[in-house]
Amino acid sequence: MSLPQLGFIGLGIMGRPMCANLLKAGYSLTVWNRSQPGIDEVVGYGARAGATPADVAAQSDVVITMVTDSPDVQRVVLGDDGVIHGARPGSVVIDMTTMSPSVTREIAAALGDRGVEMLDAPVSGGDVGAKAGTLSIMVGGKEEVFERCLPVFQAMGKNIIHIGANGAGQTCKLCNQIAVAINMLAGCEAIMFAARSGIDPGKMLSAISAGAAGSWMLSNLAPRIVNRDFAPGFMIRLAQKDLRLVLEGANEMQLPLPGTALMNQVWRAVQADGGDDLGTQAAIVAMEKWAGIKVGE
Amino acid sequence: MSLPQLGFIGLGIMGRPMCANLLKAGYSLTVWNRSQPGIDEVVGYGARAGATPADVAAQSDVVITMVTDSPDVQRVVLGDDGVIHGARPGSVVIDMTTMSPSVTREIAAALGDRGVEMLDAPVSGGDVGAKAGTLSIMVGGKEEVFERCLPVFQAMGKNIIHIGANGAGQTCKLCNQIAVAINMLAGCEAIMFAARSGIDPGKMLSAISAGAAGSWMLSNLAPRIVNRDFAPGFMIRLAQKDLRLVLEGANEMQLPLPGTALMNQVWRAVQADGGDDLGTQAAIVAMEKWAGIKVGE
Repeated sequence: MSLPQLGFIGLGIMGRPMCANLLKAGYSLTVWNRSQPGIDEVVGYGARAGATPADVAAQSDVVITMVTDSPDVQRVVLGDDGVIHGARPGSVVIDMTTMSPSVTREIAAALGDRGVEMLDAPVSGGDVGAKAGTLSIMVGGKEEVFERCLPVFQAMGKNIIHIGANGAGQTCKLCNQIAVAINMLAGCEAIMFAARSGIDPGKMLSAISAGAAGSWMLSNLAPRIVNRDFAPGFMIRLAQKDLRLVLEGANEMQLPLPGTALMNQVWRAVQADGGDDLGTQAAIVAMEKWAGIKVGE
Repeated sequence: MSLPQLGFIGLGIMGRPMCANLLKAGYSLTVWNRSQPGIDEVVGYGARAGATPADVAAQSDVVITMVTDSPDVQRVVLGDDGVIHGARPGSVVIDMTTMSPSVTREIAAALGDRGVEMLDAPVSGGDVGAKAGTLSIMVGGKEEVFERCLPVFQAMGKNIIHIGANGAGQTCKLCNQIAVAINMLAGCEAIMFAARSGIDPGKMLSAISAGAAGSWMLSNLAPRIVNRDFAPGFMIRLAQKDLRLVLEGANEMQLPLPGTALMNQVWRAVQADGGDDLGTQAAIVAMEKWAGIKVGE
């Protein structure tokens, strides 16, 4: 069986290494991006440039989109020159952006009217996971379409799970972001209590990280707080975009999420202070201001 | 060098297996407990019964206390017939109860006036860790006394860290409880969002637990929520005792801890409903009532 022809739209910090891994797995790839530098880089890896999203779709059996937010996906899929105007019946659109579950269902319905399948397949693992091909991929859509696309996912990720119908992948990703956000709150409050009490926050982290208090966050980002390293692994403004999707969804469903709302406010305080592009661990800066102390001083 | 004579006070669900491990390591042990059944069990393992805490101390180089809360430690150490009335100058009291850092410092000072050393050495790992001898032990007190007692700790635990002066071990344990509590909030909100959205919470957990959202809590207690297993690994009333210590300490230090305070209220709602002796994962029950849904239904 010959490999499907792939299209890829959105050549940012995630899309570029994902394309590199697809090419490495032997797929032929037609790409499009809003700006030229991303295209040049991925063409350098061996991809062909398409003229428009519709043109990419016309040349592809499977089109992957990896852009920023719901409106971007709507634009490249449903807009003028969008994927929908080029995609053949029976082809598949895989959206790997983190975006709204309800907008996902709208787009899937619009594509379905033209006989085009859709999977929502947001990822976790960041640019490190994208480069290493170890992304976690949470997939919504028909099981049969998921099975058909599994080899494509396996070229980009490791923990690949079909969650349910369209939107279910996005919902799962938002659950992920809820836990990431509140685990950050956990680390920040533990560090604040240590620092305010006068014990060494680094020793505290060594003592508690291996036990029932342990988390990826505590092992990976909390030590950066202690070292005052606020460089972005994941930027606050992107975490806040995701929490906006969570809180909008929760609002639609009338679901109280007090911890998520709290963390949204903590990061907002950092943003108010110019911290949009800092790493999420800079949440500590807002907590330090409230408490009138600085960790490690 | 001959092994020190040990005393052990407090033969509950934690103390009994800890005594078993000390006896297995070759220590001779004099014990005391408020009630007889604990004494009978540990005497059965090979310990001697002391008449009072003071009597235990008179026969010991190192006395370990493992009771419930600050007033219990004050009673068995400083009360009538307390450890302080039997302990020789140069001997050591190791308190492994989770209790107030400031009360710890008061007790250490009172013992110090008699020439008796003290270490605060609360643990994490629960009865499972106590039985396996794999407790994490967070120690406050003089470094020299810590080094001297290290072999005793090694008979009961694995990750044994000297944090700082007296009270530092307790402070570190409270940091642990902060992170444990807020990680639970993270798991509950992620599960609520999944359930309310109509995706399978178990699949969601499989998809997110290995990545940046991962935590001990998500891997170990969240699946029990999905299975509606609320049997106690750690009881809500004990978690609440610890959060009371955290919030009292935070109040003394004028430290805002909004996430901890929130989780304290969530568990309080479960307690109000008769859930004192349920496992901490029963927090979900309060969140379900707010949201008017049940996970998995």
